[in-house]
Amino acid sequence: MQVLILGAGQLAKMLALAGAPLGFNCFAYDVNTDTVIHPVSGITIDQNLKQAIKQADVITAEFEHIPEPILSLCEKSHKLVPNANNIRIGGDRRLEKALMKTAKIKTAPYCIIETEHDLQLAIDKLGLPLVFKTALGGYDGKGQWRLKDDSEKHRVWQELQAALLTNPKQGIIAEAFIPFTREVSLIGVRNSKGEIACYPLVCNQHANGVLALSATIESIELQMQAENIFKTLSNKMNYVGLLAIEFFEHEHKLIVNEIAPRVHNSGHWTQNGAEICQFENHLRAIANYPLGSTALTQPSLMVNLLGSKAIPSDLLSMQGLHLHWYGKEPRDGRKMGHINLCANYEGELDRRLKALLSQLPSNEFPYLADLH
Amino acid sequence: MQVLILGAGQLAKMLALAGAPLGFNCFAYDVNTDTVIHPVSGITIDQNLKQAIKQADVITAEFEHIPEPILSLCEKSHKLVPNANNIRIGGDRRLEKALMKTAKIKTAPYCIIETEHDLQLAIDKLGLPLVFKTALGGYDGKGQWRLKDDSEKHRVWQELQAALLTNPKQGIIAEAFIPFTREVSLIGVRNSKGEIACYPLVCNQHANGVLALSATIESIELQMQAENIFKTLSNKMNYVGLLAIEFFEHEHKLIVNEIAPRVHNSGHWTQNGAEICQFENHLRAIANYPLGSTALTQPSLMVNLLGSKAIPSDLLSMQGLHLHWYGKEPRDGRKMGHINLCANYEGELDRRLKALLSQLPSNEFPYLADLH
Repeated sequence: MQVLILGAGQLAKMLALAGAPLGFNCFAYDVNTDTVIHPVSGITIDQNLKQAIKQADVITAEFEHIPEPILSLCEKSHKLVPNANNIRIGGDRRLEKALMKTAKIKTAPYCIIETEHDLQLAIDKLGLPLVFKTALGGYDGKGQWRLKDDSEKHRVWQELQAALLTNPKQGIIAEAFIPFTREVSLIGVRNSKGEIACYPLVCNQHANGVLALSATIESIELQMQAENIFKTLSNKMNYVGLLAIEFFEHEHKLIVNEIAPRVHNSGHWTQNGAEICQFENHLRAIANYPLGSTALTQPSLMVNLLGSKAIPSDLLSMQGLHLHWYGKEPRDGRKMGHINLCANYEGELDRRLKALLSQLPSNEFPYLADLH
Repeated sequence: MQVLILGAGQLAKMLALAGAPLGFNCFAYDVNTDTVIHPVSGITIDQNLKQAIKQADVITAEFEHIPEPILSLCEKSHKLVPNANNIRIGGDRRLEKALMKTAKIKTAPYCIIETEHDLQLAIDKLGLPLVFKTALGGYDGKGQWRLKDDSEKHRVWQELQAALLTNPKQGIIAEAFIPFTREVSLIGVRNSKGEIACYPLVCNQHANGVLALSATIESIELQMQAENIFKTLSNKMNYVGLLAIEFFEHEHKLIVNEIAPRVHNSGHWTQNGAEICQFENHLRAIANYPLGSTALTQPSLMVNLLGSKAIPSDLLSMQGLHLHWYGKEPRDGRKMGHINLCANYEGELDRRLKALLSQLPSNEFPYLADLH
């Protein structure tokens, strides 16, 4: 089966690696360079987007910020899964918030801001502190601001205005700050029959707005809350494929932060810690194959390698360690790879994490004293 | 790291898939078509063998029957691991038998046959029944004959003579038939420091001379015997990389049948049942990285898909099942893929195997009443 992936980064590569054993032949369309490549080898294919669409049995996306003309072109082929509207929702916080409202799913209270007057209305309605996020295009903490007190209002507005001016369709979401205890996410998959399978929740820790560590957690109560929200949302969206939902945990309740209509960084641990990984399950869902088991095989966590130029090969001697290196050009803070760490039980996993962190350059990795 | 693999079949593909997450970029040289390809995508690379050798950091092989000019060319580059002599030993039963003798490892008693007179000498020395194997080029039960009584002698000689005439360097090994209780194999890996790690033994069942099923077995006594032989042999060979040893089990003792200087079909279960699979461990060894854990994560077995044109996608709903489809042109009896089956305990694995076999077309799969 030929799969065309919109986006040619590490997610496309890992989809291709997971799909190859099942007979999926994945190609990736690099939106930035307008080229079709083979995402494992990086080899350029002599094919334009229209040809690639024609040849594909199914089209999917590794990111949600896909230029509208490309999305429309794929939509017209009737091969795009998840469908274009679901990808659009993931790529525009205004649509996302509207969906939550329709589905009666709790999110942080918010206003949409387009003028300085809107900003004042938001402060009056939601109070301070406020968090601002661009409606379009923000990820990994980019396109986000905070406003703690009135004195910063003018400066923040200057920055919001600059962001608004970059794109006529841009908007700003002002959100009440949720004093969350931790951030968790749920990765789940839904097929066209409406069958759903969810992985265990993970707790996420960030460094400078970028995911640094995800570790599986066991909480029947939170898992039930999260899976109920997943079911409501994915049914409402008539979603097919893998969907990630990020939550704030606040007073033992989950509040949706955002969703991603694709395989997700906080699900990378599934490559070594779950029966069938998120990448294979996404492909199974979009190809109308039976969903695979999402059961945990062993307590697991993932550490992102942010900006690392190389990883000392000695690390590979660590028990339970699995390296996933993306082979990208190094840049400061860039996601260069990740390490999955597994163990037979939680205590062993904690020990292994401490041993791992002691061997990684401390400036590249946030302080992670306590996982759970 | 650039790896050139001699041979472009499913083993090269699975090496490339296992290596990609660690940053190995694998290319495969197809000996039959004299082309370099990318073994996951099958894309042809515009490069000849000499260029590929030059560009490679390390060269390895997915099979042992490599034409001597190609082997010599790679040997001269000083990049070939395991070394050319070890590959030659795996490709010539006369060298293999001589190695066992030097290393004082027990194999079936044998004679080398080149004339009809040699055949009579072999019968006189070894008795009947006898097994004959071509010294060069035989695999998957091809190039093998049996002689049970004197009346068949002339007919068998005609066939042996025809085999000898196909290649001036060909020879025939006559072996005393070992009335073995079962065939087992050990997959192990050795690095350049002489460190060794072995996987649990597997029991192998064949259909028409082709491996049909491998299942992990637990036997401390046999495991120790096998690992001792592995250590002796691989040290003697100064072997680097993954090495497979096939044994006959006879009266609770292991007798070496043959060795393969490469990743091996009876080690495919490690993709889903071991901490680090045979493919990754082979690459780690040849790249001078630390060896990975060979520990069993769960009782596992592998079923070869021989000649199957396609596998019903419904099978993917089975718990513990992992499909590995090679994407080759179907031919009768050809290895088209394999299924790895895992379970939490032996009884569950047996049940899962029965359920799997009941869903596979019975003519393609041998009768496998009892695994252990």
